[in-house]
Amino acid sequence: MASTNEVKAVLNRLGVETPSWAYGNSGTRFKVFGQPGVPRDPYEKVADAAQVHKYTGAAPTVALHIPWDKVADYKDFATHAQGLGVKLGTINSNTFQDDQYILGSVCAPDPKVRANAVAHLLDCIDIMDQVNVQDLKLWFADGTNYPGQDNISDRQNRLAESLEKVYARLGANQRMLLEYKFFEPAFYHTDVPDWGTSLLHCMALGPKAMVVVDTGHHAPGTNIEFIVAGLLRAKRLGAFDFNSRFYADDDLIVGAADPFQLFRIMHEVNINGGFDVGTPVSYVLDQCHNVEAKIPGQIRSIMNVQEAVAKAVLVDQDALKKAQLAGDVLAGHEVLMDAYNTDVRGLLREWRSDKGIDPEPMKAYAASGYAKKIATDRVGGNQAGWGA
Amino acid sequence: MASTNEVKAVLNRLGVETPSWAYGNSGTRFKVFGQPGVPRDPYEKVADAAQVHKYTGAAPTVALHIPWDKVADYKDFATHAQGLGVKLGTINSNTFQDDQYILGSVCAPDPKVRANAVAHLLDCIDIMDQVNVQDLKLWFADGTNYPGQDNISDRQNRLAESLEKVYARLGANQRMLLEYKFFEPAFYHTDVPDWGTSLLHCMALGPKAMVVVDTGHHAPGTNIEFIVAGLLRAKRLGAFDFNSRFYADDDLIVGAADPFQLFRIMHEVNINGGFDVGTPVSYVLDQCHNVEAKIPGQIRSIMNVQEAVAKAVLVDQDALKKAQLAGDVLAGHEVLMDAYNTDVRGLLREWRSDKGIDPEPMKAYAASGYAKKIATDRVGGNQAGWGA
Amino acid sequence: MASTNEVKAVLNRLGVETPSWAYGNSGTRFKVFGQPGVPRDPYEKVADAAQVHKYTGAAPTVALHIPWDKVADYKDFATHAQGLGVKLGTINSNTFQDDQYILGSVCAPDPKVRANAVAHLLDCIDIMDQVNVQDLKLWFADGTNYPGQDNISDRQNRLAESLEKVYARLGANQRMLLEYKFFEPAFYHTDVPDWGTSLLHCMALGPKAMVVVDTGHHAPGTNIEFIVAGLLRAKRLGAFDFNSRFYADDDLIVGAADPFQLFRIMHEVNINGGFDVGTPVSYVLDQCHNVEAKIPGQIRSIMNVQEAVAKAVLVDQDALKKAQLAGDVLAGHEVLMDAYNTDVRGLLREWRSDKGIDPEPMKAYAASGYAKKIATDRVGGNQAGWGA
Amino acid sequence: MASTNEVKAVLNRLGVETPSWAYGNSGTRFKVFGQPGVPRDPYEKVADAAQVHKYTGAAPTVALHIPWDKVADYKDFATHAQGLGVKLGTINSNTFQDDQYILGSVCAPDPKVRANAVAHLLDCIDIMDQVNVQDLKLWFADGTNYPGQDNISDRQNRLAESLEKVYARLGANQRMLLEYKFFEPAFYHTDVPDWGTSLLHCMALGPKAMVVVDTGHHAPGTNIEFIVAGLLRAKRLGAFDFNSRFYADDDLIVGAADPFQLFRIMHEVNINGGFDVGTPVSYVLDQCHNVEAKIPGQIRSIMNVQEAVAKAVLVDQDALKKAQLAGDVLAGHEVLMDAYNTDVRGLLREWRSDKGIDPEPMKAYAASGYAKKIATDRVGGNQAGWGA
Repeated sequence: MASTNEVKAVLNRLGVETPSWAYGNSGTRFKVFGQPGVPRDPYEKVADAAQVHKYTGAAPTVALHIPWDKVADYKDFATHAQGLGVKLGTINSNTFQDDQYILGSVCAPDPKVRANAVAHLLDCIDIMDQVNVQDLKLWFADGTNYPGQDNISDRQNRLAESLEKVYARLGANQRMLLEYKFFEPAFYHTDVPDWGTSLLHCMALGPKAMVVVDTGHHAPGTNIEFIVAGLLRAKRLGAFDFNSRFYADDDLIVGAADPFQLFRIMHEVNINGGFDVGTPVSYVLDQCHNVEAKIPGQIRSIMNVQEAVAKAVLVDQDALKKAQLAGDVLAGHEVLMDAYNTDVRGLLREWRSDKGIDPEPMKAYAASGYAKKIATDRVGGNQAGWGA
Repeated sequence: MASTNEVKAVLNRLGVETPSWAYGNSGTRFKVFGQPGVPRDPYEKVADAAQVHKYTGAAPTVALHIPWDKVADYKDFATHAQGLGVKLGTINSNTFQDDQYILGSVCAPDPKVRANAVAHLLDCIDIMDQVNVQDLKLWFADGTNYPGQDNISDRQNRLAESLEKVYARLGANQRMLLEYKFFEPAFYHTDVPDWGTSLLHCMALGPKAMVVVDTGHHAPGTNIEFIVAGLLRAKRLGAFDFNSRFYADDDLIVGAADPFQLFRIMHEVNINGGFDVGTPVSYVLDQCHNVEAKIPGQIRSIMNVQEAVAKAVLVDQDALKKAQLAGDVLAGHEVLMDAYNTDVRGLLREWRSDKGIDPEPMKAYAASGYAKKIATDRVGGNQAGWGA
Repeated sequence: MASTNEVKAVLNRLGVETPSWAYGNSGTRFKVFGQPGVPRDPYEKVADAAQVHKYTGAAPTVALHIPWDKVADYKDFATHAQGLGVKLGTINSNTFQDDQYILGSVCAPDPKVRANAVAHLLDCIDIMDQVNVQDLKLWFADGTNYPGQDNISDRQNRLAESLEKVYARLGANQRMLLEYKFFEPAFYHTDVPDWGTSLLHCMALGPKAMVVVDTGHHAPGTNIEFIVAGLLRAKRLGAFDFNSRFYADDDLIVGAADPFQLFRIMHEVNINGGFDVGTPVSYVLDQCHNVEAKIPGQIRSIMNVQEAVAKAVLVDQDALKKAQLAGDVLAGHEVLMDAYNTDVRGLLREWRSDKGIDPEPMKAYAASGYAKKIATDRVGGNQAGWGA
Repeated sequence: MASTNEVKAVLNRLGVETPSWAYGNSGTRFKVFGQPGVPRDPYEKVADAAQVHKYTGAAPTVALHIPWDKVADYKDFATHAQGLGVKLGTINSNTFQDDQYILGSVCAPDPKVRANAVAHLLDCIDIMDQVNVQDLKLWFADGTNYPGQDNISDRQNRLAESLEKVYARLGANQRMLLEYKFFEPAFYHTDVPDWGTSLLHCMALGPKAMVVVDTGHHAPGTNIEFIVAGLLRAKRLGAFDFNSRFYADDDLIVGAADPFQLFRIMHEVNINGGFDVGTPVSYVLDQCHNVEAKIPGQIRSIMNVQEAVAKAVLVDQDALKKAQLAGDVLAGHEVLMDAYNTDVRGLLREWRSDKGIDPEPMKAYAASGYAKKIATDRVGGNQAGWGA
């Protein structure tokens, strides 16, 4: 197996971005349950994100969602974040909550709607410019609910045209990350339903366009690590959105539903260069803590990612290659499982101690009193959620 | 094939209940899009339901959802409905939108929460008594999101205990209909996920407890008509909740995603006695018209159900049985397909003319001006939705 | 709706290829049931295929599978076919039944195995040259059963190298068609599991490489018509392999499981130019008649394809476009459903009469006595199957 | 967490039966790859099974499949087994490989076929009597491929009648275990597709009829541990057939695809009494080693089951219950994950040493030279497989 030091070296350069919206309320179409202490505004969300970084040492940036995280002064907001020890990260656009988007946004039949959607995306790049952010993440809720509702190919053409306008506006060091999703909220067809569609658009646009893999956005049974390996091979894997699922886009804590799958994904990332120095791959959480506490939910998620990465790096690559080339099926499988079955929690505690943080992030956060403090302090106002 | 008269006889006794909530706004966790003219209260919902009955002649009752359809005076409400030509139907309970239900209702770990949920169900029976309604439909959002969150068996025991209390309160002619659902809003386990679980509880309770088949509540690939045949064989199919799906519980217009499946279901209903005089099976729509107009959406749904039923009744039973007993696979299949491939729209136009209603319900409704009228009249107030 | 003549014009140029192996025995891993009269050699298979063409007028070519259809003299074989009124069609390769292919063929870790697989593919092109066939269809059973068994990216590289060698050998008018499949016989990862992977390889190879869509080779819930539209947009849809499925790669009669899906696919083909004069799209059946009679199974399949095509061509394109651009969801859906709900069997009977063939192919074949004749004649020898 | 001794106590009484057919060749409908040293007869299969028990100390019995394991003298066969240190176990019937079963066996439309199938099942009980075996395991391949092929309800009635005849023949200490399967080899409907159908038949038959859970026989996304908990609650879980799957009934090594799922299943077994002294639950492997070596494949499977059981027993039940009753979602989840993330391989090595066997079964078997010996010795004859 790889040495502990190799694992630590990867962990040292692995930052996992947390999403501002994970700190706000979320739910299903049936109910959004509020929780005590939930942030009322973007500044409070960033404060919570800073807690996650404080206790994990591995969550240095915060993804924003526009307009949910609209503020009057983005530079001031960035300064606020830095004062708390974190930086602003990926800008996520939102073209699904205006009434005009009922039939889609960049793919909608109405050209005015498409123009408005593109304008919003350009606004997002303006914000990126102001706070020096690299990535614009595009997820489109576009699609149809009924066969015959719209023309699938026309919508692809509209998508391509819209994306071109946004791509043209990107700065030299900025990227456009295009996310795909199998279904929801559209229930007949989705305009970017799979990695192939996303990749084709990215290839047509140019090198600054890359694919996002959200681990919850696939058909049942899909081998996600195969897709990851392929996108790395094509040099077009821009980012992960991590979460886990048993059924659909459940948005549960990453690693909670199928930790072995997460490990296999990390193994493909590892052997295909995704953890190398200078990797183009960005690692981001995208989850909903509907019934569990939000800050601990994020801390746990970061730990799960780290444990999966540690196990992946531990894989004995020489032994693996040897077994594979020899066609020894059980031996190759066993090399992989040896790493997976290793309990790396001690190694991670050690890594945290090395960094000067508490080896037990969950306990340290629980003992900090922060949860109680925000529950007491954040009274009045409107709790943040997906609606605002 | 069966005669046109046999088809018409079945259609004559086939009432399809429409749900009050289909007339209000609905959506996904991402957005609820409002529509012009949407009802502001239960009285307006029933008025819209009456339109559907007016143009189809086949939607004589309206399912209610408590508390969304709470009114001050249920007898007055029932009179209002009857004045519009419809009757109040199934009472649907709601134990998923109070804050206390974050970890479940009748299965929750907290006994106080369970008691409150049971109290709500008893309240629903009170309403049934007042307006002389037969069916209480129970769908529980109960379940967990994470392995270890709660004890699955304990929750089954709590469910059984809760249901017993409600069952004991049923009047002589009242029924309890227990719905199952594969997943959502719970994402790890659901307490009543499949027909088997629902049926076991119904059998333990007694003859007034029956199973509800919602056509959108199954795992991918599930043969729904097999379940329907089995429940009819067990004499425990109490009701259908009709809708259609491509992916999960999409709640699209019934027959819009897989009209052949709907036909196969109706075929099993037909050959297993579900359309007989005095059938215990109740036929109800349960859909969300997120992006399409709601009243026409319901009208279309009723028509789709009728067309599927008409085709099912048309199946040449003698020829089918003969082919099946002879083991002639292609002949048996062909007999079924002959009925399915028949265009029954003319027959249905004729049936409507016989009944004195317009043969083209969609066009007749469109021409009526009702949509424009409610868009103009229903200004101000809060549009009804799932929240209220 | 489109005119009857437009439908007939499309039908006139629509040839659906039948596969030689559909006339032989097939089954599951549990059992291959023999049937009376099954061909013992390729000549007899072609004779059966000629019957399907005789009664449908729409199955002018026969796909071959090498080595199952190896003959001593291919020119003689082609002459035999032509004498029966049909022509030899697509050559399907087989790199999954030699013992050496236990760990894959063109992707196998052993370079000798890969070389042998490539050699087989080149042999297939030799046959194509001899009998003047355009298409080489490649389906690879390659993949792994266990995580760690082999290196996914290395296998992609091996695949690319192998394909290059084959591509280089193609004649000026020859094409390479690359099929993808979600899973089976590999159960962990498949080397060409989806359209994206197939398309990427085709794009890297050149314009003579195109994608094959087998309608049974997708993850549950996949919107196949979206993929079809996308491949037509990319000008890389080379062929269909038609069959239908309820679960996995069931290989049932096309249109038997979800006739509405087949119609939707044909609608996308139609509006995206796939039925145009000079279309590059080839239409082929790929089915297994495990429990039903084989020749009638193929006849029924051809009829199902034709009915779906007829309905698709009938769609009122002007009305559809108008509704779509107006954002009228229900109207757009209704235009499509109007065509689908039309009973086109009369139109097809008429088309057959126009062509001088019996309007009822199933009955005509049944009455012909051919089934009885082959059951009597083909005694002794080994019935053809997948094994030989 | 539970103590090491508690884990060892459960391991001490946990026998996992291996299936005779796992030692023979197996494959897919595309190809059965032979392997060197594969047994040629039932005696050699049992010899291989004895190796698995020798190196694991946990596989004391061998499941047989009739007619694949038909022998002239069953008492002699049992003596042979005992001489090798193992005993004969569950008798598995086979009503899917005779030509007469093309349309089903106990559900077939032809009463003669049903009678023959029942006669075969009675023969199996005769064998059970001779060798003093407790369990008859029934898996029926019965179903249909096309809608209309047969009558679903009639087939249920035929099934019930057939089972009654078999049940009546059971000895006082014998059981009938009824297995369900989602699909394959039937592709439209399966006569026993889910646990509910199996349980209903078992309840109708009596207490000696119990349900078998094969872990590969469910719809995508099914929560298997929920079913396990429910069947234990109903006191009707008779046996497990262990294997793992990514897609369908892949029959891979148990724990190879989703070790966390296996752990969750074992957790439900544990907390619902399935590992108690005198448990009625039987633990059996049912796998196909298509591309990997068979004896090591079985050894690895036994180890995987043991590791999952060990982790499940380690769960800190007091802490779990406390968190659950407090509604602390993350705490309950964490208690479970703590056990899962523990590396129990050392504990298992210790348990083996305690028992006087080699702590590393895979290495010990590899070093034994047995694989080489059988490859050399077993030359000539026909390798065993599913065909015989």
